[in-house]
Amino acid sequence: MSNRNDMTPTSSGFYVSQEAPISCDNPTPTPTAPAPDILRCAYMELVVTDLARSRDFYVDVLGLTVTEEDEETVYLRSLEEFIHHNLVLRQGPVAAVAAFSYRVRTPEDLDKAVAFYTELGCEVRREKNGYTKGIGDSVRVIDPLGFPYEFFYDVEHVERLAWRYDLYTPGALVRLDHFNQVTPDVPRATKFMQDLGFRVTEDIQDEEGTVYAAWMRRKPTVHDTAMTGGDGPRMHHVAFSTHEKHNILAICDKLGALRMSDRIERGPGRHGVSNAFYLYLRDPDGHRVEIYTQDYYTGDPDNPVVTWDVHDNQRRDWWGNPVVPSWYTDASLVLDLDGQPQPVKAREEDSELEVTIGADGFSYTRKGDEEQGFKLGNTL
Amino acid sequence: MSNRNDMTPTSSGFYVSQEAPISCDNPTPTPTAPAPDILRCAYMELVVTDLARSRDFYVDVLGLTVTEEDEETVYLRSLEEFIHHNLVLRQGPVAAVAAFSYRVRTPEDLDKAVAFYTELGCEVRREKNGYTKGIGDSVRVIDPLGFPYEFFYDVEHVERLAWRYDLYTPGALVRLDHFNQVTPDVPRATKFMQDLGFRVTEDIQDEEGTVYAAWMRRKPTVHDTAMTGGDGPRMHHVAFSTHEKHNILAICDKLGALRMSDRIERGPGRHGVSNAFYLYLRDPDGHRVEIYTQDYYTGDPDNPVVTWDVHDNQRRDWWGNPVVPSWYTDASLVLDLDGQPQPVKAREEDSELEVTIGADGFSYTRKGDEEQGFKLGNTL
Amino acid sequence: MSNRNDMTPTSSGFYVSQEAPISCDNPTPTPTAPAPDILRCAYMELVVTDLARSRDFYVDVLGLTVTEEDEETVYLRSLEEFIHHNLVLRQGPVAAVAAFSYRVRTPEDLDKAVAFYTELGCEVRREKNGYTKGIGDSVRVIDPLGFPYEFFYDVEHVERLAWRYDLYTPGALVRLDHFNQVTPDVPRATKFMQDLGFRVTEDIQDEEGTVYAAWMRRKPTVHDTAMTGGDGPRMHHVAFSTHEKHNILAICDKLGALRMSDRIERGPGRHGVSNAFYLYLRDPDGHRVEIYTQDYYTGDPDNPVVTWDVHDNQRRDWWGNPVVPSWYTDASLVLDLDGQPQPVKAREEDSELEVTIGADGFSYTRKGDEEQGFKLGNTL
Amino acid sequence: MSNRNDMTPTSSGFYVSQEAPISCDNPTPTPTAPAPDILRCAYMELVVTDLARSRDFYVDVLGLTVTEEDEETVYLRSLEEFIHHNLVLRQGPVAAVAAFSYRVRTPEDLDKAVAFYTELGCEVRREKNGYTKGIGDSVRVIDPLGFPYEFFYDVEHVERLAWRYDLYTPGALVRLDHFNQVTPDVPRATKFMQDLGFRVTEDIQDEEGTVYAAWMRRKPTVHDTAMTGGDGPRMHHVAFSTHEKHNILAICDKLGALRMSDRIERGPGRHGVSNAFYLYLRDPDGHRVEIYTQDYYTGDPDNPVVTWDVHDNQRRDWWGNPVVPSWYTDASLVLDLDGQPQPVKAREEDSELEVTIGADGFSYTRKGDEEQGFKLGNTL
Repeated sequence: MSNRNDMTPTSSGFYVSQEAPISCDNPTPTPTAPAPDILRCAYMELVVTDLARSRDFYVDVLGLTVTEEDEETVYLRSLEEFIHHNLVLRQGPVAAVAAFSYRVRTPEDLDKAVAFYTELGCEVRREKNGYTKGIGDSVRVIDPLGFPYEFFYDVEHVERLAWRYDLYTPGALVRLDHFNQVTPDVPRATKFMQDLGFRVTEDIQDEEGTVYAAWMRRKPTVHDTAMTGGDGPRMHHVAFSTHEKHNILAICDKLGALRMSDRIERGPGRHGVSNAFYLYLRDPDGHRVEIYTQDYYTGDPDNPVVTWDVHDNQRRDWWGNPVVPSWYTDASLVLDLDGQPQPVKAREEDSELEVTIGADGFSYTRKGDEEQGFKLGNTL
Repeated sequence: MSNRNDMTPTSSGFYVSQEAPISCDNPTPTPTAPAPDILRCAYMELVVTDLARSRDFYVDVLGLTVTEEDEETVYLRSLEEFIHHNLVLRQGPVAAVAAFSYRVRTPEDLDKAVAFYTELGCEVRREKNGYTKGIGDSVRVIDPLGFPYEFFYDVEHVERLAWRYDLYTPGALVRLDHFNQVTPDVPRATKFMQDLGFRVTEDIQDEEGTVYAAWMRRKPTVHDTAMTGGDGPRMHHVAFSTHEKHNILAICDKLGALRMSDRIERGPGRHGVSNAFYLYLRDPDGHRVEIYTQDYYTGDPDNPVVTWDVHDNQRRDWWGNPVVPSWYTDASLVLDLDGQPQPVKAREEDSELEVTIGADGFSYTRKGDEEQGFKLGNTL
Repeated sequence: MSNRNDMTPTSSGFYVSQEAPISCDNPTPTPTAPAPDILRCAYMELVVTDLARSRDFYVDVLGLTVTEEDEETVYLRSLEEFIHHNLVLRQGPVAAVAAFSYRVRTPEDLDKAVAFYTELGCEVRREKNGYTKGIGDSVRVIDPLGFPYEFFYDVEHVERLAWRYDLYTPGALVRLDHFNQVTPDVPRATKFMQDLGFRVTEDIQDEEGTVYAAWMRRKPTVHDTAMTGGDGPRMHHVAFSTHEKHNILAICDKLGALRMSDRIERGPGRHGVSNAFYLYLRDPDGHRVEIYTQDYYTGDPDNPVVTWDVHDNQRRDWWGNPVVPSWYTDASLVLDLDGQPQPVKAREEDSELEVTIGADGFSYTRKGDEEQGFKLGNTL
Repeated sequence: MSNRNDMTPTSSGFYVSQEAPISCDNPTPTPTAPAPDILRCAYMELVVTDLARSRDFYVDVLGLTVTEEDEETVYLRSLEEFIHHNLVLRQGPVAAVAAFSYRVRTPEDLDKAVAFYTELGCEVRREKNGYTKGIGDSVRVIDPLGFPYEFFYDVEHVERLAWRYDLYTPGALVRLDHFNQVTPDVPRATKFMQDLGFRVTEDIQDEEGTVYAAWMRRKPTVHDTAMTGGDGPRMHHVAFSTHEKHNILAICDKLGALRMSDRIERGPGRHGVSNAFYLYLRDPDGHRVEIYTQDYYTGDPDNPVVTWDVHDNQRRDWWGNPVVPSWYTDASLVLDLDGQPQPVKAREEDSELEVTIGADGFSYTRKGDEEQGFKLGNTL
């Protein structure tokens, strides 16, 4: 629960406050062991059911660079990356996420990760030679929220291709930007991530303080990962950045030309949350990929936290364009450390989809309008 | 009716042919008098019910330039225009279109216009001092399709502000591009417009040859006006151009900032038809305005005519994003020469909305797919 | 000579007038035979000395599409083109232009072209099967200014690739926009082109009426060709369009990545004349290619003619960036109908280079500034 | 001196290495006191000689937001900023820089700053109420290089206007990006900044190890400040970011429209160093302002350091466009803590201008070309 009276309304329709305005009544315990110093989200390991088809999508359509590949695995990176990979595609029987992987500041941070998660009673494994090619000493855990997280420092450097404009496509992906996770209890997840050293930058709440989603960061962008309320643990999406908005439009144009426009799930559009320009695609297994550009600097410790009203129809799309229901409901399974899908627990609190769209939901364009009862669902 | 066997399929999924592939079994008679030589669509006269509110929308939000104004009327132009206006807002009791106005090549073309429409039995009026400020000798008619058309040559020149970048906004509108009219019988309307000297550039048909819409031009762009099948005569939209796609996105961003995002009806997106980037807005009276950029040159007499299958889900939006139903159903009344609304006649042929969306319609992304039965309505 | 008193100054620093403000005291005779109805500049035939190297430049670097090729010749087109080619590269001993080719409205216009040039005493040839592949019945002439001009109507249609975004590069060239010719006597050349049916859209003059360059059009853009004062007949450049400015920047970035940045001769920048965004490249033979986007509509018969003061430092580059001397002095030879280089005649009137740059020239940023004597040459 | 053998050549023509490849034989002593934890460059205090004229430039032309102002001072911020200001314009007798101001992580870091600089024997002052409005407790020092540096944590928060697209201009400035300082001995300056906690991201050297410039960062962009070799201490420029490249072009276009194009000193262009898109302007006092967009993430501790050969003609401009001499020679004075200009000491090592341009300098486009002797000066 939170208190909107502690927040400052802005001229843009959202609120700001100084502390992450999320409280939690059933928190995970805060370890006495210090958290590892996480630099940034670094790569995702995706299990795909048809490697050739997925490679086509990520390499031939989206233009990611192949650092290395073998019969079972493709290692991909973005154009400005200098570490071995930002995405691993691994052939497997069930489409799922095998790891959300973060880079830490020093080799010693791996010891801290082991201690931190061990104290929490989590399953913790360590592999000196890494779980994927190009990566050395690595720690993998199932965190208290049920997600497979990885931490590493040691990594093979590869050439940063930022200046290789001869390799750029019109929709060139230049960085991995963030992950997005689906979890039933957002305040509990947020509190845990704060213990892990993350800072909240934005969230979506209702007046009663129900939290529908929260964004949190280590590197000074809006997020390295976000927690989206829903049945979980599941993976909502992985996001890559382009330099400019036209690059994102070019991806849509290319998908049209390839008669693959049905891979476009939502957008392009301007987010309210993050102020970034976005597009959501679905890969051949249904894994969701966001293409993202131009959020803002968040690196000061007192960076104002932005809270959006769940009924503000511009929170998810600043232009008020509808969020398709699949975007709320669909997500990818995540695996345990033995490669088995994690069981999914239902969200018990209100669903953002239901409170905003359709017969029982409402969304407004202008707070306080007489037509506050406008139903977005009417246009769906 | 038409014959798809006479058309050549392309690698992009549509067809091309050399003659406007539309036949008509109840054409308007072709006058023996020659048609006037029309240069381009030049301005629209819009009746608005709250002039101050409409002025806010077109001037303060969209950034059109006021050439001149008085208590009843505002004369607006785009940044690259050198004639007095591209849009007239006139206070009136009923929101409607008073004139679709075209510029002709010479003063003598007005005599031709009089003879052409008189022979067709249309109501024809002429006003040496013009119907609006800044325009001289003008002819107004109610054409055989029921639309109020104007023709003029004589016009006051004003400064072309193209180089005045100090006046540009992020969403600067630089040209009037086209009109779009709703009419029940598209083949009949098309045949009439061909008699008036227009050339078809693109159309939407089904396999049986039912024509749902057709685009036609005098200046060498995809259109000066289009005929959209529906209850008519009504005005579907008036379109202004920007230089680049980001200008259109900036208009959306600004509408969000002004908490006017509900003025966005459809888009932004990439059209299949015309290949242009687009956005549809609704003004305070509900008049639809398109913002448009980057179609292609069509000025050769043998310019290939593009025919889209009505079931091709990329015809209206190249990215397959849904067309909102209001876009198909809503349109503005048009006035007769005495300022009374023209009666609206229902379309009798199939509705594009119904054949493509919902329980009875279908749309495909890939022609011949097994899932050709994919219902766009499922996502609406 | 002209008279600036007949021109109207604008708030942007240039002048406008209603008639092409250029007079000529030694005009070519005006034929009694009517001029052919020219649609647009259609293609240039370039002789290159190393076909493989030129093909690399135009295809691998600039991304033009190969319609057809053989050992001696490569036929290239832009992405929005539906005729066989916009550029022919032909292997030959001397780098030069073999033809400036224009499309006419009807087959009969070829007869008009024959009569028109024959009356002028020009050398005229006709080839029913065309001078290049993909083109039928063609007329080639050496015009009174010494340039090899071609006219044709009959042409093979090929697929317009405008929707094939899978083929677009970041710097995609979508249209042939214009030619630019170097000629010693600009007023004489302009008068001849007006006889041929061209209309002047802009020019550069000094207060005494010396004309340094003039732009003229058939299609309603700023030009299909321009006359640049200098030793001639020579070819100054051929220009292709992109959709947006970032496409032009992408070409620069790619040339940098390929370590071919020395192919960039001038720009990118914003023209004063035409208001377009531009870049000038030099191909492996030194032929100059402009990349160009976003000029304005000029199709009305009373389109205001823009006259720039030769000393206005923003006329050639709106940002006041210097024009490199080679841009003024270098140009390509043109061939006679037997393939021999045309002799070059020196310009006798003042040189734009000399009157604006260096010890004896001057350019101003603000007309009437005390520092009107500012020498651009100081920064060169 | 450095050793190019320890560096790895890349496919883009520069070198990478793991340690800042700069050694120094006359370093400032490394304090035993720990350095303050600097977050980022935060604002510059500029002394201007005509406040109204400077306000016009920064507010009316460049569009910075006035947070607060009085008769002597204007406090400006960029659209994404939430602290009180990024730029202070203060009326004064001599155009100069009064402070390069950095934000630190905690209030306690001010104590560290005092100890750090005191140990170095620098002049150190502290003002609990800050030296400028909107800022609290502040430390100002004259650093060992002679620059007036400020550190603060306490600051008034103001509204982040990132979502206020109604306030955006076409050339909207969204962030302060970096400073750039001129100093005679770059290795010595670099070593000192490393002691202060900065990390080198890129530099320019010759084969003998002479260092001409170095870029260094706290926040994970290419730089918070750079050291440019030349007579110093002086201020080379202060840089603001836009979202996209077209925003920078729009600033040029507007300067042209305002007939202020002579404020453009260099660019726009693509940097080799930083890979960013850039433009350099000169304000009414000659202070240099860079407009900058799209460098890359540098936040990993092993981020590869990029070393450019001083003779690589693409190092300063990726497109090989010339650097105007004034860009090398001109810079702003900096003030001591009493407001008096600091004396300027001449650079003793080679000048980048002289070794690359003109009779004695050389630059190459392709390393190892026969024409390595190509003189850039030839085109100047």
